[in-house]
Amino acid sequence: MGTQPGRSVTSKVLALLDAFSPASPTLTLSELARRAELPLPTAHRRVAELVAWGALERGDDGRYRIGLRLWEVGSLAPRGLGLRELALPIMEDLYEVTHENVQLAVRQNFELVFIERIAGRRAVPVLTRVGGRFALHATGVGLVLLAYAPTEVQEQVLAAPLERYTALTITDPVRLRRRLAEVRRAGYAISDRQVTMDALSIAAPIRDPDGVVAAISLVVAHDRADPVALAPLVQAAGRVLSRALGAYRQPSGRVPLRSRHERQ
Amino acid sequence: MGTQPGRSVTSKVLALLDAFSPASPTLTLSELARRAELPLPTAHRRVAELVAWGALERGDDGRYRIGLRLWEVGSLAPRGLGLRELALPIMEDLYEVTHENVQLAVRQNFELVFIERIAGRRAVPVLTRVGGRFALHATGVGLVLLAYAPTEVQEQVLAAPLERYTALTITDPVRLRRRLAEVRRAGYAISDRQVTMDALSIAAPIRDPDGVVAAISLVVAHDRADPVALAPLVQAAGRVLSRALGAYRQPSGRVPLRSRHERQ
Repeated sequence: MGTQPGRSVTSKVLALLDAFSPASPTLTLSELARRAELPLPTAHRRVAELVAWGALERGDDGRYRIGLRLWEVGSLAPRGLGLRELALPIMEDLYEVTHENVQLAVRQNFELVFIERIAGRRAVPVLTRVGGRFALHATGVGLVLLAYAPTEVQEQVLAAPLERYTALTITDPVRLRRRLAEVRRAGYAISDRQVTMDALSIAAPIRDPDGVVAAISLVVAHDRADPVALAPLVQAAGRVLSRALGAYRQPSGRVPLRSRHERQ
Repeated sequence: MGTQPGRSVTSKVLALLDAFSPASPTLTLSELARRAELPLPTAHRRVAELVAWGALERGDDGRYRIGLRLWEVGSLAPRGLGLRELALPIMEDLYEVTHENVQLAVRQNFELVFIERIAGRRAVPVLTRVGGRFALHATGVGLVLLAYAPTEVQEQVLAAPLERYTALTITDPVRLRRRLAEVRRAGYAISDRQVTMDALSIAAPIRDPDGVVAAISLVVAHDRADPVALAPLVQAAGRVLSRALGAYRQPSGRVPLRSRHERQ
């Protein structure tokens, strides 16, 4: 240990997990070895250990997939199912009163990850998958998460090429920077046909005592959307969740220097 | 590598993940080291690698928690979110027509793991948590999963002490064995106040071409439940999901020896 050249064993184990993706949810041993850049015997030994623990499972077809035990441990992530458990009743309420798509997302580095989604049966089709990633600059939840991200994150996103999804996607960094300022001023974001030409989303921040930790949105058909009517609904949902996360509470363990008033 | 005595590095890394539980979702470094039975410097090094990859995250309080990247990889487990994505619309339909609790579970060794849950606002309170475990012998979903489990699994569960949750929990292995035969005969399971004294659950199997892979249930207040009316509804939901999983399809790549008829 500590003496083997190059990558650590830990990183090799993690590379085996990295080999799986939504597009490749099952892999053969040789595909796993190739993707993790490991010799076949090494891959074989590590994979056997991962199977024994339950991180991977081997199907009747001989292919490997992510195992239930890893899903179970992953479900303990506070930013995953923890946030989802808290948010689901509020999301169900939003769905009940609108029958539109409701989404919940957090930022992971320079992308967003969808934590939960309620897809309206008669609502505009959405492509999101729970656990799936997306760029920050196009969707409503992405614009909220980017607007409240640390400056370094914003600068990196603005410096990189901004992918165009539709004719309306903002790909000019100057315009995007202005839009982010508007989002902070308004307290919500609207993405109008910036991902697909039939959909509009309205998103609001969810805060804990340290800042914005997630975003919630409604995705509606752009031609029947009334963003002005829907924005307060989404903002209210964001505030209920923020309150549950202690965003508006006195920070614990600190003596207040002056009285704090709740702010928007 | 392969020369270090005792546990492999892989098992040490996995032991660090095992240290987290629903009761202990955040841990300090020394708690992590103690639970994983690792010297502090070793734990420190491995934890740093896990944080760099995103399997763990370090909070502002200095405590570690399961990271979003692990949740993301875990979401690729076909028996986790994969099954859940497939089942959710059917579960929502069951909820719409009953407004009762709907649950989805799979077996992991000698326990069940809840994959999804829709909690009725006005329904009987349930204690389940997505990602949480429970014994097989008491709940409706558990009885279904146990009834269709391999014989070795059944024998091990029947040989171990059966925990009593209420006066009605079946803790006698002879009675439980008889009950499992009834479940297989009926094609559904009823657990009447065997977990809490106010609830009754009705569960049905979900199959793929190789057998029962999950169970779906309704959990209702026992005093207003009509299991005879609800059982066909739950069984129908199980069958819709089984069909989606290819349970009633011709096995692929095999020449049928005789025509196959769909069976219950």
